[in-house]
Amino acid sequence: MEHNLQHTVSLLARTPAALNALLRDLPETWTSRNEGEKTWSAFDVVGHLIYAERANWMPRAKMVLEFGETRAFESFDRWGHVRESQGKSLAQLLDEFARVRAENLTELRGLNLRPEDLARRGRHPAVGVVTLSELLATWAAHDLTHLHQISRIMAYQYREAVGPWSKFLGVLQCAGHSSP
Amino acid sequence: MEHNLQHTVSLLARTPAALNALLRDLPETWTSRNEGEKTWSAFDVVGHLIYAERANWMPRAKMVLEFGETRAFESFDRWGHVRESQGKSLAQLLDEFARVRAENLTELRGLNLRPEDLARRGRHPAVGVVTLSELLATWAAHDLTHLHQISRIMAYQYREAVGPWSKFLGVLQCAGHSSP
Repeated sequence: MEHNLQHTVSLLARTPAALNALLRDLPETWTSRNEGEKTWSAFDVVGHLIYAERANWMPRAKMVLEFGETRAFESFDRWGHVRESQGKSLAQLLDEFARVRAENLTELRGLNLRPEDLARRGRHPAVGVVTLSELLATWAAHDLTHLHQISRIMAYQYREAVGPWSKFLGVLQCAGHSSP
Repeated sequence: MEHNLQHTVSLLARTPAALNALLRDLPETWTSRNEGEKTWSAFDVVGHLIYAERANWMPRAKMVLEFGETRAFESFDRWGHVRESQGKSLAQLLDEFARVRAENLTELRGLNLRPEDLARRGRHPAVGVVTLSELLATWAAHDLTHLHQISRIMAYQYREAVGPWSKFLGVLQCAGHSSP
């Protein structure tokens, strides 16, 4: 399946509502617990998604269009959300994620990207040359990697409660490769 | 985290809306493709969740209360959803899942289970003695294992589109342990 910008936008537009439906007003034992030291809770993941909206996807897309390969993207701080999430409720974070995602998609649509724009190349500080198409596909896949992670974090809270069924529950065998 | 019936019900009540927000009206390339031969698409997973509402959770809970350990549960057919999903749209399946889940939660609440009921024991045909508490915790964790799986199935469709970012996306490293 090749990258299709409309399919990417369709998915990106749905993630905030999906997380809202799953997480809002859930008991905190589901949303504030993590998988152990230096791991994230569902609350942390939503904070990270907001931070990436501000610091990662659209800023990098605009850098590709403006500077091409001549300037590497800023490094992304995987713990950058911690300070910004402090003192906020999960409900506030869910509202904020919906708002910044909607703003970014409005801006993305406003770029009216053509196929030749999607083929333009930028420079990632670690992986080297990437295309705008790859960056936008990664934005969508990044949503999915964190939905995958949230499912695993939450299931982890019931790892003992499920008793002998644990061996049948694939999510409990997941080695944590989407964390953080 | 011990099993808490209210927490379990809170999660079970949200899954249909979360899947609806994520999947309804998405382009079919996201929802009808799988991870290869004998694997499931997101459409198949929703069908499986419906089938489990009918054939697994509440029927087994009632068997524990009625027969205890004296009668083993019916085996669950992991491919039982295929015939029942045929000819239906994903929108129909999402509606059906919301309806059967709501009916089952109404029935579950109506049982007014007390702690001593949750400790009652039944017999699983493969794993042996299980408690009602473990069965109900597994119902919730089963939702999470399939949300984990759906995220992975969908990300798989972009495994090439993301280019060199694939190594950073944990969901693309997931070995398929939640399938089916």
